[in-house]
Amino acid sequence: MATLCRPAIAVPDHVITREETLELARTLHADHPQLGLALRLIGNTGVRTRRLVRPIEETLQHPGFTARNAVYEAEAKARVPEVVRRALDHGQLAPTDIDMIIYVSCTGFMMPSMTAWIINNLGFRPETRQLPIAQLGCAAGGAAINRAHDFCVAYPGANVLIVACEFCSLCYQPTDLAVGNLLSNGLFGDALAAAVVRGDGGTGVRLERNGSHLVPGTEDWISYAVRDTGFHFLLDKRVPGTMAMLAPAMRDMAAPHDWDVSNLDFYVVHAGGPRILDDLSHYLDLPPEMFRYSRATLTERGNIASAVIFDALERLFVEGGAEHGARGVIAGFGPGITAEITLGTWTDAGREDPREAARELELAVPAAALQGVGSGAADS
Amino acid sequence: MATLCRPAIAVPDHVITREETLELARTLHADHPQLGLALRLIGNTGVRTRRLVRPIEETLQHPGFTARNAVYEAEAKARVPEVVRRALDHGQLAPTDIDMIIYVSCTGFMMPSMTAWIINNLGFRPETRQLPIAQLGCAAGGAAINRAHDFCVAYPGANVLIVACEFCSLCYQPTDLAVGNLLSNGLFGDALAAAVVRGDGGTGVRLERNGSHLVPGTEDWISYAVRDTGFHFLLDKRVPGTMAMLAPAMRDMAAPHDWDVSNLDFYVVHAGGPRILDDLSHYLDLPPEMFRYSRATLTERGNIASAVIFDALERLFVEGGAEHGARGVIAGFGPGITAEITLGTWTDAGREDPREAARELELAVPAAALQGVGSGAADS
Repeated sequence: MATLCRPAIAVPDHVITREETLELARTLHADHPQLGLALRLIGNTGVRTRRLVRPIEETLQHPGFTARNAVYEAEAKARVPEVVRRALDHGQLAPTDIDMIIYVSCTGFMMPSMTAWIINNLGFRPETRQLPIAQLGCAAGGAAINRAHDFCVAYPGANVLIVACEFCSLCYQPTDLAVGNLLSNGLFGDALAAAVVRGDGGTGVRLERNGSHLVPGTEDWISYAVRDTGFHFLLDKRVPGTMAMLAPAMRDMAAPHDWDVSNLDFYVVHAGGPRILDDLSHYLDLPPEMFRYSRATLTERGNIASAVIFDALERLFVEGGAEHGARGVIAGFGPGITAEITLGTWTDAGREDPREAARELELAVPAAALQGVGSGAADS
Repeated sequence: MATLCRPAIAVPDHVITREETLELARTLHADHPQLGLALRLIGNTGVRTRRLVRPIEETLQHPGFTARNAVYEAEAKARVPEVVRRALDHGQLAPTDIDMIIYVSCTGFMMPSMTAWIINNLGFRPETRQLPIAQLGCAAGGAAINRAHDFCVAYPGANVLIVACEFCSLCYQPTDLAVGNLLSNGLFGDALAAAVVRGDGGTGVRLERNGSHLVPGTEDWISYAVRDTGFHFLLDKRVPGTMAMLAPAMRDMAAPHDWDVSNLDFYVVHAGGPRILDDLSHYLDLPPEMFRYSRATLTERGNIASAVIFDALERLFVEGGAEHGARGVIAGFGPGITAEITLGTWTDAGREDPREAARELELAVPAAALQGVGSGAADS
């Protein structure tokens, strides 16, 4: 049993609105032959606001990869501790309860990884397993959940901490002028997320089955060119159409679990862009509101890479969670093209633990009414 | 049950000897105030030859991170398929039998990772899980074995392919002139390794327990500075002394398994340098020949990062393996400072599988002697 508990999300203070993004594009690329197309694409993302780790004036500068990565490291170390503490609180765990830390981030590179820094500085045990993943991009949030799930299956009762730290604005490349780059410049945002997967107990999504799917022949559709100036994001115009391949993969992955992926109670999916969500509605034959958590993340924060699915999941928690036993899917999509898919059931710890259930009952029912009910009667 | 099968190792053709390395250091750093110390340190590594992915003249040039990483990608794609095929052969598995690919490499960066390329180009299923690890350095070989073990514990019968691809020479930085850099320039070599972990059957090390240990306060002892010019390796002079902390960690990790780490039958450990092997002999109270596989790897190939433990393990196979049931430890050490430790028992598939055992018997015993023995008698 492994339960993905309530995530902690953090976004930096600097805000950029859609209007500001469009105005910047008009100013910076006034002579671009496809400016009109780029503006339409940015407008169509539905992104209203995004957060940036640095003010926009600074974000638009490229001080070199050395300086960029130093900013990444400094900002990660400044911001990760708070989401880690909050995620542990949500999962009612202490740092010493954690057996593995999975840190996913594709927007900066450190060796040793942040996993070592987290263990050393935030009270974790030296024996905590470290799993840093830098090369799965936006799919890494789903991969983190799936590897955490595997670990808890292997070692019942183990607990895993997941941290997703994405400062996409630090990958802005002013000299990249393809339409896909202009679109990306208006799409991605910065955010951090953390969540624990508890081996026992916990309220959230009880993880039941996971799977991965790589769409053959699409390696260059989403990729980094690694250069002296850092990571250059390349986005192919065919990417928005990938749900035609990934919706069937989700269906095939759910089938041996005897679940119909078109008939689940909640959907927490990567909001790479609006077309992904529209197409999932279409191919899975679901009303758009089933993807409201992902849509809200995209609208308010842009595509925050591996942190998207945690931000979307947090919105499900804010809504009050699902019914105990409700079935759902979590899916991250990213370079490869890769989907990392999880099937799970909403679990309320109070409903699982008979003592908790008894306590709830005591709270709900006048004490006198309990007399003669169950074993508690012997005490009265 | 998970068995780490015989690894496949590959090294590139270009050889550099200790004498050539020392001569290069004398020539390139004639005016270096600590040249004498650097030469002594290089001489003391015990490294006699190393292999390089490019000729030494080219290796000494720095054409920029863009070009360096392009070489990494081209060489990885050219060289990985052969070790993968050979590792699968050793494990008697087909690509379609593999459920997860763990690719470890700290000497180049790609997104999508090589895992996607391997799946697409070498006949693996699109559902194969991808686990690329770039940030655990020399410890990543151990981490790969341990995460493969976890996966097989979670999903009995699953099979994992591990690939370690390290072109350390592509991280040569001509402007880094600290003594630690001069030493590193004479220590690291290039190599590839692959191995499968079989969920059922297989001859090799049956994985039983794994653990990780991070030495507090040593994050900056082995690290990368990430710069416009790529990854700059930083080696602190305290690193050779880390076995004082890691030998007890190995002991503590073996204790709950009721094993005395000073009393095992085989040792396959990271040969980061000669002092590591000398100190392990000292702290574990073992004769130096117990580390002969690691010593041979260091002598013939230098420190080949995450590939070391596979190259050392291959030497145990070449020696004929261990006795069925022999107990041993595999340990990778790397940045953090992190140790990734595995306890396992040598397993001969033929000894495990009664049919295999029967076949061996047939080969060893004259046919006439088998009459009347077991069920085979009915056929005669």
